[in-house]
Amino acid sequence: MRFKIIPYLLIVACICFLSFVQDGKKKIVFFGDSITELGVKKGGYIDLLNNRIASNGQTNQFELLGAGIGGNKIYDLYLRLEKDVLDKNPNIVVIWIGVNDVWHKSLKGTGTDYDKFGIFYDALVQKIQDKGAKVILVTPAVIGERNDQSNPQDGELNLYSNWIRQYATQKNIALVDCRKLFLDYSIKNNPKQLDKGLLTYDRVHLNETGNQLVADAIWEAIN
Amino acid sequence: MRFKIIPYLLIVACICFLSFVQDGKKKIVFFGDSITELGVKKGGYIDLLNNRIASNGQTNQFELLGAGIGGNKIYDLYLRLEKDVLDKNPNIVVIWIGVNDVWHKSLKGTGTDYDKFGIFYDALVQKIQDKGAKVILVTPAVIGERNDQSNPQDGELNLYSNWIRQYATQKNIALVDCRKLFLDYSIKNNPKQLDKGLLTYDRVHLNETGNQLVADAIWEAIN
Amino acid sequence: MRFKIIPYLLIVACICFLSFVQDGKKKIVFFGDSITELGVKKGGYIDLLNNRIASNGQTNQFELLGAGIGGNKIYDLYLRLEKDVLDKNPNIVVIWIGVNDVWHKSLKGTGTDYDKFGIFYDALVQKIQDKGAKVILVTPAVIGERNDQSNPQDGELNLYSNWIRQYATQKNIALVDCRKLFLDYSIKNNPKQLDKGLLTYDRVHLNETGNQLVADAIWEAIN
Amino acid sequence: MRFKIIPYLLIVACICFLSFVQDGKKKIVFFGDSITELGVKKGGYIDLLNNRIASNGQTNQFELLGAGIGGNKIYDLYLRLEKDVLDKNPNIVVIWIGVNDVWHKSLKGTGTDYDKFGIFYDALVQKIQDKGAKVILVTPAVIGERNDQSNPQDGELNLYSNWIRQYATQKNIALVDCRKLFLDYSIKNNPKQLDKGLLTYDRVHLNETGNQLVADAIWEAIN
Repeated sequence: MRFKIIPYLLIVACICFLSFVQDGKKKIVFFGDSITELGVKKGGYIDLLNNRIASNGQTNQFELLGAGIGGNKIYDLYLRLEKDVLDKNPNIVVIWIGVNDVWHKSLKGTGTDYDKFGIFYDALVQKIQDKGAKVILVTPAVIGERNDQSNPQDGELNLYSNWIRQYATQKNIALVDCRKLFLDYSIKNNPKQLDKGLLTYDRVHLNETGNQLVADAIWEAIN
Repeated sequence: MRFKIIPYLLIVACICFLSFVQDGKKKIVFFGDSITELGVKKGGYIDLLNNRIASNGQTNQFELLGAGIGGNKIYDLYLRLEKDVLDKNPNIVVIWIGVNDVWHKSLKGTGTDYDKFGIFYDALVQKIQDKGAKVILVTPAVIGERNDQSNPQDGELNLYSNWIRQYATQKNIALVDCRKLFLDYSIKNNPKQLDKGLLTYDRVHLNETGNQLVADAIWEAIN
Repeated sequence: MRFKIIPYLLIVACICFLSFVQDGKKKIVFFGDSITELGVKKGGYIDLLNNRIASNGQTNQFELLGAGIGGNKIYDLYLRLEKDVLDKNPNIVVIWIGVNDVWHKSLKGTGTDYDKFGIFYDALVQKIQDKGAKVILVTPAVIGERNDQSNPQDGELNLYSNWIRQYATQKNIALVDCRKLFLDYSIKNNPKQLDKGLLTYDRVHLNETGNQLVADAIWEAIN
Repeated sequence: MRFKIIPYLLIVACICFLSFVQDGKKKIVFFGDSITELGVKKGGYIDLLNNRIASNGQTNQFELLGAGIGGNKIYDLYLRLEKDVLDKNPNIVVIWIGVNDVWHKSLKGTGTDYDKFGIFYDALVQKIQDKGAKVILVTPAVIGERNDQSNPQDGELNLYSNWIRQYATQKNIALVDCRKLFLDYSIKNNPKQLDKGLLTYDRVHLNETGNQLVADAIWEAIN
């Protein structure tokens, strides 16, 4: 009779172990715009991260979820936060937004006011932190790859990125400074001041090298 | 001994009566932009409504709260909905928004995309209705008072107003069609195609006649 | 000997006759944007006018020259006036401009200020008239074909068209009011408020019916 | 009798001398926007240049004419070139334009397309050179005085200034690089990244120090 208890104990042990592993598994939601929407496709930065996790044998430690939608601005993230992020119970939320907030000003007349960007950004971060998840912030990278500050949106991208940097420092939040990474890369590799083709294929969206650069930087931040 | 019970009964009766009256008192929040922010000032449309309520001896039936902030767009209402509206436990919420969503496109490059306007508007209304309050919608009135459709923002104001009208019909929500009221007024009273001075003092914000027109129209809707 | 003079006299007579005919031939330059650039292609409104001239046996009476360049605004016409119009010694110049002056405001942030539109337009007309050519003005037709004044640029198109109408009246210049023609057509034929497909294939550029409507209206004006 | 000729000879000599001096006198037209319109006022950069000329006893060597109009863009200079510049028969024309071409994009939706800026700029310069006058080009200085490239229009100001720099080099035209001068000054003197108050009083228009800096730089260029 008493031996019959062993299978049950084993099952319980297994469940405990699994739940322990489960507890240790980081669920990371990538929350952003078209760059992130493309990130989950083959060769995208989230796909590259998944490959790295797989080759490291760490699939039981990470679960990556893409939550990027093309054309999104900070307002849109705020609107779909509950449904697309909080309801997934993430451990970490990577917020990468800002390109459209700046770009749509000249493209459509529907960009985001500088002061409103900060207000909505802060409200978004607070709601995520209140839910107990860790936040990682990412600065908008580029609209045009010249490194002499002559891409038309450079002034505003710097302005909005400066806000994110200061906010991250103030609130002691992890930051992946993609804007700085991309600029440094262009300074080293773009002597001809090409507009695109180094880290992007169209001035904004990541090519193979760009996806790898971003994947590497985020890998550092989530470990 | 038994007569001593009468005062208690009277007190109870009074309390019952008061609580009954209290239950019948409509708390109305006016949720909007600078037009509504100015509406609570002396001579503003909310002030005029309060005067009317007072002279009707209906102060125990209505409580009006202004919740307008200059420069607000639909996004801003969505952000501050809980704090400025829902936490007040209103019976009725009058939503009057849209001028800045259109105007800021050309003024600052930070207007609201047409499709996003509808998405946030609907989300706002649903959250209010979920809280059990009645909603009254108001179309954005004017940016310029000419009646020949040659005010620069006429096309977009008509477009966004059409959306609100159709939404109100679909969802069976009360509508105060200020845009139509202002246009009809201008057709009757503005043969010289003046740009301002009829219902506004600056093409957008209400003068005395404008405040009266709006107060009258909203009075109909809340009764 | 004296009979030998006759052939010479005949030649002289022929030359006189030809030069007389030449003098009577109207050279018409169509000066505008992409709509006019497309107008010279097969089925375009200038092509349709040429067909009509040919079938009427009036090829010795009219010579039509297209001078439309995509994306042009009033400034661009002013810049290339000498080279593309005046140097051709036209009898008539048809000026059809305005769509991009309005449209590029929201599309690129590079539209034309209302006051500058009038100043450059007037300078353009005066230079053409000083050269002795007749001018025919055309109002910008549509950006979107709805007839309820809810196309986003309707307000500005009406405003700029009103300016052209008043200018034509003041200066006693012939006017082809395409904006009115297109609106009237839509009121009769577009009960479903379609955005395109009636007179344009993309909200702006003319389809077969649109080209015919314009060709007919301009035919009236040049005869 | 023969002595009577002496006064005549003296008069002739004086006339010759005066005409020689006249020939040597440089007439300089300053052609630009509000910054130049303000430049002729007391303390403005053109006024400072006049003071310097006077204190140097060089009033017979220079004649300075202001031709700045607030809100002007490259188009406006092209339109009023004959009347305001060429008709004055200048020896030198200083062209300082570009701030509004960039700024009005976000401010009014009526800035200047990058490609059109170059086309009109070149047409303007050629017309002046064809008239035999020397041209001096000036880059647009600042819209905001931070030196970390985070003023919203920095990207476009750099882009348009780069065009002017390359054009000046290509065409071998003198250049006063105000944008570089202002940036260098800010790097040395603006560690707190103030938005205004160093060389401008409102982010764009020159204060006392700004006028002096510009006057000194132009003085070098015209000598």
